[in-house]
Amino acid sequence: MFSPSVQHALDLAGIFVFAISGALLAVRKNFDVFGMAVLAEVTALGGGLFRDLVIGAVPPAAFTDLGYFLMPLVATAIVFFLHPHVERIQTGVNVFDAAGLGLFCVTGTTKAYEYGLGLTSSAVLGLATAVGGGVLRDVLANEVPSLLRWDRDLYAVPAIVGAVIVVLCIRFDELNAFTSALAALTAFTLRLLAMRFHWRAPRAWNRRSATADDGQ
Amino acid sequence: MFSPSVQHALDLAGIFVFAISGALLAVRKNFDVFGMAVLAEVTALGGGLFRDLVIGAVPPAAFTDLGYFLMPLVATAIVFFLHPHVERIQTGVNVFDAAGLGLFCVTGTTKAYEYGLGLTSSAVLGLATAVGGGVLRDVLANEVPSLLRWDRDLYAVPAIVGAVIVVLCIRFDELNAFTSALAALTAFTLRLLAMRFHWRAPRAWNRRSATADDGQ
Amino acid sequence: MFSPSVQHALDLAGIFVFAISGALLAVRKNFDVFGMAVLAEVTALGGGLFRDLVIGAVPPAAFTDLGYFLMPLVATAIVFFLHPHVERIQTGVNVFDAAGLGLFCVTGTTKAYEYGLGLTSSAVLGLATAVGGGVLRDVLANEVPSLLRWDRDLYAVPAIVGAVIVVLCIRFDELNAFTSALAALTAFTLRLLAMRFHWRAPRAWNRRSATADDGQ
Repeated sequence: MFSPSVQHALDLAGIFVFAISGALLAVRKNFDVFGMAVLAEVTALGGGLFRDLVIGAVPPAAFTDLGYFLMPLVATAIVFFLHPHVERIQTGVNVFDAAGLGLFCVTGTTKAYEYGLGLTSSAVLGLATAVGGGVLRDVLANEVPSLLRWDRDLYAVPAIVGAVIVVLCIRFDELNAFTSALAALTAFTLRLLAMRFHWRAPRAWNRRSATADDGQ
Repeated sequence: MFSPSVQHALDLAGIFVFAISGALLAVRKNFDVFGMAVLAEVTALGGGLFRDLVIGAVPPAAFTDLGYFLMPLVATAIVFFLHPHVERIQTGVNVFDAAGLGLFCVTGTTKAYEYGLGLTSSAVLGLATAVGGGVLRDVLANEVPSLLRWDRDLYAVPAIVGAVIVVLCIRFDELNAFTSALAALTAFTLRLLAMRFHWRAPRAWNRRSATADDGQ
Repeated sequence: MFSPSVQHALDLAGIFVFAISGALLAVRKNFDVFGMAVLAEVTALGGGLFRDLVIGAVPPAAFTDLGYFLMPLVATAIVFFLHPHVERIQTGVNVFDAAGLGLFCVTGTTKAYEYGLGLTSSAVLGLATAVGGGVLRDVLANEVPSLLRWDRDLYAVPAIVGAVIVVLCIRFDELNAFTSALAALTAFTLRLLAMRFHWRAPRAWNRRSATADDGQ
């Protein structure tokens, strides 16, 4: 699909931006520097770790590639010293996070298919790769995963679209560097649009007219 | 044990009812439709996924059988449009959930034993299969797992009894469709009785006389 | 490294003390006796279970060694009847917990290396083995993992030091019963000192001067 070195560089970039989001949440939760590192590692590597356990690719890439492990530590160090600046450029972080989302849903789907899963299962696992780290991050921070909340802009849908494009390309034997990049770009763009225009998914029918427990 | 097609139909039924309970919790937590789908999938497939990872049956059944994946989406759609009606028939849902509990503890124990685990370990893993999805559901929803709370009717005990009956049958070479059904039925009935008569497990000795922190 | 029977006895001791900490938290959270048992099992076996899944050692030791499963039940029974006494001797429990931490970081690192992981990855997985059970315990109890909180005495650092000593010994071909014991003892001692002198890790730079949200 991509050349291995390009692929690896993109992976590291995705890991880095996800790690930033984990470390920032740790700062907001008032964790210490080790809590920041743990949350950065979990956010960046959790989704891929889950994917690798499911497809039986053990030991997972997170434990065989030293760069995957070190990148979140770099992100932690940056956030440790510069967090007010990083928070100020939250928009920039969100753009990178969207890029990570687009990339991970494509590489996750592709890797799952290479390990013999069916098309639908590959897309589902690609989605899980893209969003899994963020869910683990929020669970460890004792918060309702933002993936599940109705008051957050669409996050799963762009990843679903990206993963579906990939499996359609596989189905019609058209998966290559160009179509892969297109799938990642589509997910990336959709996520940016969702943030820009605050696209949200509906809650259950008639739920808005419900009176009670609007908090969690 | 059962014929494969009967087994499969029972599995799908168990997955469906567990998914309903996940989607209903998502509605109560005010999640959007994707949050409902995620919680439905996790509740229905989480226990079996954990079992398959532990016994090394990768990729897990949740990712190889399309029906396992689609059933929670059907449950989500039903709850999305009909949730006031589904909540009204909460008793009905609880009965189905009890049926799922009885079924999953039996199939979980049997599958674990087939993969070479010992009798005790098989029973433990059968229990984990039956209750694991609900625990993951509550963790993702940021609530104390109802499995652990003293103010909920017995849930683990019926599953334990069902799993123990299965391993006793295996031990005495009497596991067949009839005894399996009997084990599932016993767990099912015990759970119904626990709900009807509000059976609860004791807290730690002298705990009731303790003064402090009765909330969580 | 150690003789197998000594190793096994040490493992069981570590499992026991971790299980005590899980059962005690369950009492404080007002869980029933089954909640106590679940939390004891998860705390004691969770870290090793994660390690075994990552390195592909399935079924994990937690499901093949009956003693590993029974030990947390013994701990649960003790806490069930004697919890006021156990809480009174909290210092004693903490000392045992520190011993478990020291032991698990050493055995976790060693086992990971034996399964073919690199030195850095082995140390990381050793750390995860030592602290993973406690993190799962806190997540199930719906609390912020004490590993991550800045207002708790250093917990990860002693385990990191112990794991690093082990990989250094492996690197220089000096891993034996004596150096392993030394690594475990170092981690144990560091943890005791951290508790005695309330050593804490720093939060993000300038975080102390931040005004808002000091709670979680």
